[in-house]
Amino acid sequence: MIDSYTLTPKTRLRRAHNRGAYDKKTVHAIIDAALICHVGYVIDGQPFVTPTIHWREEERLYWHGSAASRAIKMQKSGVPVCVTVSHLDGLVLARSGLHHSLNYRSVMAFGIAEIVQGRTAKEDHLDALLERIAPGRKDDVRPNTVQEVKGTAVMGMDLDEAVAKVRDGGPIDDDEDYDLNIWAGVLPITQKVGKPIPDPLMKKGIRAPRYLKKFQIG
Amino acid sequence: MIDSYTLTPKTRLRRAHNRGAYDKKTVHAIIDAALICHVGYVIDGQPFVTPTIHWREEERLYWHGSAASRAIKMQKSGVPVCVTVSHLDGLVLARSGLHHSLNYRSVMAFGIAEIVQGRTAKEDHLDALLERIAPGRKDDVRPNTVQEVKGTAVMGMDLDEAVAKVRDGGPIDDDEDYDLNIWAGVLPITQKVGKPIPDPLMKKGIRAPRYLKKFQIG
Repeated sequence: MIDSYTLTPKTRLRRAHNRGAYDKKTVHAIIDAALICHVGYVIDGQPFVTPTIHWREEERLYWHGSAASRAIKMQKSGVPVCVTVSHLDGLVLARSGLHHSLNYRSVMAFGIAEIVQGRTAKEDHLDALLERIAPGRKDDVRPNTVQEVKGTAVMGMDLDEAVAKVRDGGPIDDDEDYDLNIWAGVLPITQKVGKPIPDPLMKKGIRAPRYLKKFQIG
Repeated sequence: MIDSYTLTPKTRLRRAHNRGAYDKKTVHAIIDAALICHVGYVIDGQPFVTPTIHWREEERLYWHGSAASRAIKMQKSGVPVCVTVSHLDGLVLARSGLHHSLNYRSVMAFGIAEIVQGRTAKEDHLDALLERIAPGRKDDVRPNTVQEVKGTAVMGMDLDEAVAKVRDGGPIDDDEDYDLNIWAGVLPITQKVGKPIPDPLMKKGIRAPRYLKKFQIG
């Protein structure tokens, strides 16, 4: 098994090579830790960037949408897409303006979007999505109807052209600037999950399921 | 003064019209509440989506990068871009799989990327960025060098073709599903700023500036 994605002209970093990573473990971890990605696609030369929930199954990345949406209608013809996943981890305050930076983890993955054909295959992938969000919930919810599955398009693409970019740690200043009397450091930024808010329309006496307490983003 | 962006074929929502908003106040608030955006652009028919810090000055949106980066080299020729800003606000657990949803606020803005010319103009915009991140810090830091400004490209685009999309609140289930014994509700998700982490290389005795305590994302 190959542990890294092959570097290509699209994924080769032109700058800050030390921030790039091509190993699958790093790329997978960044993808899996996020609930949403940004899918880039082109219609008549015009770029569109659509935020959407995503999930990974081994070396394929999936997202879904209404079969009637413009994004899906375009993507299902098998067009090149760029799927970007990013986490903002902190604001880096340096001793000079232009050395300020962000701490982040991101992945850019390039591929051809393909629509998943067949009801069973679609349902399997949608189950995988639900399982990712809340393991066990699949068995609790009302099963999908034929019409619901028909109205939903599941898109997938191979993960074979991908690059991760990570910045962490403190500011990197010019040598002579470390002597300046300027506060420097990092403001960490994290995503937090709050306490579940029950639907006011929920029937009385329903207990919160286990997976709610254990929920983590990604 | 016109308070709303004009609807165009690119910004007209095909579905879920009730989630769309074209008023400038809503669009601005979503843009300003985020530190990063995703810039979509096209090279030889291939979409690229690059996450980057952004800032708004009235009706123009700005981002920056190394003048040597591929993204900037491409964008500065005046190409169409799509800049998307999104916030993930919650995971919506419905009574059926396909009514699960996310709460979010997003903006898609379409325009032509333009490079800012001239050192003074560039510096003014970079000052505006620093002022947005940490009001007052501009006066603390070491001034930019000529070389630093030269190596930095500032990109801007007019905000005139933009649409916000917002989903909030609880699950929206099929009428007959409200009777099911299934927990339903929302897991709220927020971005939190942690305690400042001082650079271990910082000179002793430097006090944390006021703006650190008041820092908010956006």
